[in-house]
Amino acid sequence: MYLEKIEKAGDIKKIKPEHYEQLASEIRSFLIEKISVTGGHLASNLGSVELTMALHLELDLKKDKIVWDVGHQAYTHKILTGRKAGFDTLRQLGGMSGFPKRRESEFDCFDTGHSSTSISAALGMAKARDVLGQNNTIVAVIGDGALTGGMAFEALNNAGKCDSNLIIILNDNKMSISENVGGIPRYLTDIRTSEGYLDLKDDVYNKISGTKTGNSIVNSIRRAKNSIKSLMSPGMLFEEMGVVYLGPVDGHNIYAVRKAVKEAKRLKRAVLIHVVTEKGRGYSPAVKHPARFHGTDPFDIATGLPKKSSNVSWTDIFSTVMIKLAKRDERICAVTAAMPDGTGLKRFSNIYPERCFDVGIAEEHAVTFAAGLAVGGLKPIVAIYSSFLQRAYDQIIHDVCIQNLPVVFAVDRAGLVGKDGETHQGIFDLSYLSCMPNMVVCAPKNKWEFSDMLKYAAAENRPIAIRYPRGPVYEGLEEFRADIETGVSEWIYREADIALFAVGSMVKTAEKVRNILKSKGLNVSIINARFVKPIDEEAILEAARSHSLIVTMEENVRSGGYGEKVLDFMSSEKLESECMIISLPDKFIEHGSVDELIKIYGLDAETVADRISKAFNK
Amino acid sequence: MYLEKIEKAGDIKKIKPEHYEQLASEIRSFLIEKISVTGGHLASNLGSVELTMALHLELDLKKDKIVWDVGHQAYTHKILTGRKAGFDTLRQLGGMSGFPKRRESEFDCFDTGHSSTSISAALGMAKARDVLGQNNTIVAVIGDGALTGGMAFEALNNAGKCDSNLIIILNDNKMSISENVGGIPRYLTDIRTSEGYLDLKDDVYNKISGTKTGNSIVNSIRRAKNSIKSLMSPGMLFEEMGVVYLGPVDGHNIYAVRKAVKEAKRLKRAVLIHVVTEKGRGYSPAVKHPARFHGTDPFDIATGLPKKSSNVSWTDIFSTVMIKLAKRDERICAVTAAMPDGTGLKRFSNIYPERCFDVGIAEEHAVTFAAGLAVGGLKPIVAIYSSFLQRAYDQIIHDVCIQNLPVVFAVDRAGLVGKDGETHQGIFDLSYLSCMPNMVVCAPKNKWEFSDMLKYAAAENRPIAIRYPRGPVYEGLEEFRADIETGVSEWIYREADIALFAVGSMVKTAEKVRNILKSKGLNVSIINARFVKPIDEEAILEAARSHSLIVTMEENVRSGGYGEKVLDFMSSEKLESECMIISLPDKFIEHGSVDELIKIYGLDAETVADRISKAFNK
Repeated sequence: MYLEKIEKAGDIKKIKPEHYEQLASEIRSFLIEKISVTGGHLASNLGSVELTMALHLELDLKKDKIVWDVGHQAYTHKILTGRKAGFDTLRQLGGMSGFPKRRESEFDCFDTGHSSTSISAALGMAKARDVLGQNNTIVAVIGDGALTGGMAFEALNNAGKCDSNLIIILNDNKMSISENVGGIPRYLTDIRTSEGYLDLKDDVYNKISGTKTGNSIVNSIRRAKNSIKSLMSPGMLFEEMGVVYLGPVDGHNIYAVRKAVKEAKRLKRAVLIHVVTEKGRGYSPAVKHPARFHGTDPFDIATGLPKKSSNVSWTDIFSTVMIKLAKRDERICAVTAAMPDGTGLKRFSNIYPERCFDVGIAEEHAVTFAAGLAVGGLKPIVAIYSSFLQRAYDQIIHDVCIQNLPVVFAVDRAGLVGKDGETHQGIFDLSYLSCMPNMVVCAPKNKWEFSDMLKYAAAENRPIAIRYPRGPVYEGLEEFRADIETGVSEWIYREADIALFAVGSMVKTAEKVRNILKSKGLNVSIINARFVKPIDEEAILEAARSHSLIVTMEENVRSGGYGEKVLDFMSSEKLESECMIISLPDKFIEHGSVDELIKIYGLDAETVADRISKAFNK
Repeated sequence: MYLEKIEKAGDIKKIKPEHYEQLASEIRSFLIEKISVTGGHLASNLGSVELTMALHLELDLKKDKIVWDVGHQAYTHKILTGRKAGFDTLRQLGGMSGFPKRRESEFDCFDTGHSSTSISAALGMAKARDVLGQNNTIVAVIGDGALTGGMAFEALNNAGKCDSNLIIILNDNKMSISENVGGIPRYLTDIRTSEGYLDLKDDVYNKISGTKTGNSIVNSIRRAKNSIKSLMSPGMLFEEMGVVYLGPVDGHNIYAVRKAVKEAKRLKRAVLIHVVTEKGRGYSPAVKHPARFHGTDPFDIATGLPKKSSNVSWTDIFSTVMIKLAKRDERICAVTAAMPDGTGLKRFSNIYPERCFDVGIAEEHAVTFAAGLAVGGLKPIVAIYSSFLQRAYDQIIHDVCIQNLPVVFAVDRAGLVGKDGETHQGIFDLSYLSCMPNMVVCAPKNKWEFSDMLKYAAAENRPIAIRYPRGPVYEGLEEFRADIETGVSEWIYREADIALFAVGSMVKTAEKVRNILKSKGLNVSIINARFVKPIDEEAILEAARSHSLIVTMEENVRSGGYGEKVLDFMSSEKLESECMIISLPDKFIEHGSVDELIKIYGLDAETVADRISKAFNK
C-alpha cells in the first residue's frame, strides 16, 4: 500500500517510479470508495490522477503554484498534499471543500469553481513573480471544455506576448461536463486523430530525449516548423496566438507528462502542453456515463447506480414544460451553456434538436446569441444556473434589457445550492437582475406555478427571469393557481396583524412559520410575492392597512433584494407598518447541506417565527 | 455632388461605379465637417467608408441585416440609410445617437456600444432565419480590437459548426482604440505582411473572377489548402475553428470587398472576410493620431486641434496619483483593458512599463489576471469604466471577493457620461458592487479626496472600488480632508433639521442644494458619504438625533444603491426621521449632455431643493 506513505506534500517524491502505477491505482480505488459514500466529482478526478502525480513529482509546491481550472478535478492534488482524511467529510458542513481553497491549504494557491479562470490567474502570478524578481514555476491546468470560455481565450491572447515562463496544461478529455461543442473541440479532435501529428510528436520527443540541450532543440524544431508554415504541425491555433504548443501527450503516462513539463519549464514563453486523458478512467460506469459521474450523489460501487432515487426536481419540471411549450409554438427555442443535462434540456434537444442550442461553456455568448434569436423572431429561453449567469451580467443589460428583447432566463440553482459552496450559491440574482431596467424578475412557489410562469414568460414580449432552486420541487398549495399577471402577487392566507411576503422557495417556509405563529395565537397572512420586480404595490398597500408587521422572506443577499424594494416603497408611501427583512447575510456561504445552511443563516421556519414573535410582542 | 442623391436606403445603388470614389470622398468631407462641430467618433468612421458602401451595394437591407460591433463606426451606414440630417444633432439630447439604435431606424437591427457582441448576435439571427425557413443574409462587422474580447471567441467557436450562411467581416485597422496588444493582433499583422499570403489572395481572386462557379472553386481551393495543411494559408486560426477565411482584402477597394461578400454569400458556412482598412483615412490628423480622433470633442479642421482646452479631469488626477503611488511602492501596478489613454494610464505605462498591463479588450481576463497579480504579491489597481466593468461582474465576485484579495478597482466614468447614451452610462456600479460580500465601495467628493482614497485603497489589504465620474474634477471644499477610514463619512456642515448624505459627485450638488434651502431659512447639514459600503451607521444615528429629514443623493439607479442601504439601516434601528432617496430612475438613460440629463432626471440642485422644501414644509 503506497497510498499509506502519502501523508503530506512532497511525500510522493519518495515513491519509486516502478510503483507509480500501483499508487495511481490505489488513488483511484480511494476516490471511488470515498465518493461512493459522500458524493462528489468523480469522472474528472479519475481522469487526472497521473497528470496530478506528474505535476507533484516535477514541481516544488513550496514555491511553485498550480491553478486548477474549475477546480473539481483537484481531488488527487488534495490527497497528495496531506488531505486524505478530509474525504470522509467531503463537501459537508465544516468538512473539506470539493474545490481548491486558499484557506484550506497553503498548496491551494487560487480558489476556483467557475470555468476558464486559470490562465488569467496564472498569468497574473507569473507577472508578479517577474516584477518581484522571483523564480518559480506557475502552472494552469485547464480542461478542453473550459477552453471554450471566452476569458480563457482572452488570457491566451494576453499570454501570447509573455516573455517569461508560464505553463498551461490542456487536460483534454474530450468532454466538458457533457459532450463538447463547437470549432475548438473539433479542432482538438483533429489533432488527436491525425497520424501526421502523432509522427511529429514522436519525432519531437525522440530528439529531445536524445540530448541534454532540449531547450535549443525544441526551439530549433519550432523554427523549422515555422519555416515550412507548420506543415503538419499540431497546435497551430495556439502557436499562431504566440503560445508554444507541446503535445499531444498521453496523460496517463507519468513519464511522458513529466518530460513535457521539464521541457516547458526551460522556455521563456507561455507554453501549452496538450495532455490527452480519459474521463472516468479505471471505473467502467464512469467511463460509460461521464456526464452522470461528473458530479454524483452517493452510489453503489458494484453497479454504479445511485443509492437513492431522487425526487422530482425543479429542473425536471422545467424539462417537461419546455417540451410542451415547444410543441405549441414553433418559435420557442432553448439555449444552454454546456449544461444540457444539468438544466434538464437534454430531452428537449432530443425532440427538437434544431431548436436547442448548446453553445459551450460560454455564458456571455449564450445571452447575446439569444438576443440575436429574439431579434430574428424566435422566443429563446436561456437556462443557466444563477451563479454562472453572473458571467453574462453585462450582456443581459446591454444586449437584452436595453433593447427590451423577449428573452426568458430560466435561472436554475437560485438560492442556496449546498455542497458546492461559495462559488456556486445562487444568492445574488435577485439583486443583480432587479436593478436592470426593463427586466421582470419572478419566482414560483410550487411546480404548478413554475409551469404557469414559464408559459406566461414565453407569451410576454420582454425580458423575464424566472429563478428557482436546486433540488426537489414543492408540491404543496396546489389549489392556489391564480393567473400569472405581471407584478401581481398572490394571497395565500388573508388574516391580519402579521403579513408574510415570501419569494419562491420561501412560500413553503412561510407556511411553516405561520403554523408556529398560529400555535401561539397570532394572526398571520401569507402573500406569495411571485414578482420581485416589479413589486406588487397594491398588495403592500392592502397589507399595510390591516397588518402592523410586514415580513419579507427571500433566499438572496439583503442588498438590492426583494425586502429593500418593499421597504423602499413602504417608506415612500409613509406606511406605518413595521417592515422586517428576512434574507441571507452579506457573506459568502460555505458548503454544507442546504438545510444546515438555511438554519445557520436564520432562514429556517423556527428562527424566522422566533424573530417575528419577539418583534410582534414588543 | 453625389452625396446629395443619397436620401434613403438603397439610393447608393443608383450611383454609377465610376462615381464611387467621388462619393466616398464626399462622405469623408461630410463626416469631418459635421464631427468637427458636434464631436463624435471620427477615425474609425473615416476608415470604414468604402467597406460600408460595398455592403450597402451588395446587400438588400430591407431583408438583410448588418450588426455593427461596438457601433461607433456606423456613421456611413447612417448616411446611407437616410440619416444625413441627423448629424447636425449627433449625440445631442433628442438628436441622433452615435450608435446603431433599433428605435432610430429599421436598418439598425441590433443596438451596440460595448465590444465583441456582433458575432453572437448575428449567429442568433442566422439560426432564427434557419428555423423560420427564411433566406436572408446576416453580416457582423467586427474590428480587430473587438476580436480580443472573449465573447467574440466564444461566438466564433460556436459559429464554427454553423451549417448555414453567416458572414463575419473582420475590419482590421491595426488598432482598437489605442494600439492593439497580444497574440491575435500579432497574428493579424503576420497575415498582412506575408508576401506568400498576398500571392495566394490574388490567386484565389483571379480564379474566382474567371468563372461563374465561384462557390465550387472556393471550395476546391479550400480542399487543396487543407490537403497540404494550409501551406502558406492565411487565416489558419479561423479555419482551424471551422470558420472559412477569405482575404485579406483591401477595405478601401469597393470592388474587392463586394466580390468577397458575393463569394461569402454562396457558402453554407460561417465565413470570415478579413478586410484591411486605415483608421482615420483621408484626414491626416486622424491618421497620425488615431487614438485622439477615436472619440473627439469639436475640433478645428485645418489644424486638428480641439476647439477648447479641456479642464483637469478626474482621470487626470488618477493618472498623476498612480505615478506617485508607484514611486513609493514597487508592488503597485496597473491593469487596463485596451484603454491606456481613456483611463489615464498612458503616462504611468511610459514611466513603469513593466508594471502596467494592457490586456486588450478583455475585462473578464483583466480582473482575474489582477487577482493573480495580488496572489503573487503585487498591489494591482484595475482601471475600467463603470459600464465596461459590468463585463467582469462574475470575476469580481468569484476571483477577487470570495478570496478577499487586495485588488483596487478604479471605476472611471461612473454616473452619467452624457453623449454616448444608454450603453455607456455608469449608473449600476453602486448596486452591482455593493451586493458583493467583502467589497468596499467608496466615492470621492473632490480631487484631494480622490488622491487620498487611492492612497488609502492601495494601503488596505482587501477589494476596494473607487468610483468617479467623467469630466472635470471638483476643486471645491479643499479644506475638508479628514483621514480616510473604512466606512466613515465626513461631516461638511453640521446643522439640524435636514441632513444631506451625498455620494461622490453629489457632494458638489449638495452644496448648491444647501444654499438654496438656506436662502429659504432652512437648516441643512451635509455629510459626504465617502463609503457606500459599508455605510457609516454612526453618522446616520447621529444625524437622526437632530434631523427630521435625511436625504440621500447618488448618481446611480435606486435599486440596490446607497439610499436603500441607508433606509434599511434606519428601518432596522427604528429611527423616526424621514428618509428621502434621490437617485436615478429605473430606466436606461439616453444620450444628451450630462447637465441636461441631470436636470431631466431630477438630480440637479433646483429640483432636489424643491423636493426637499416641499417634503419639509409638510
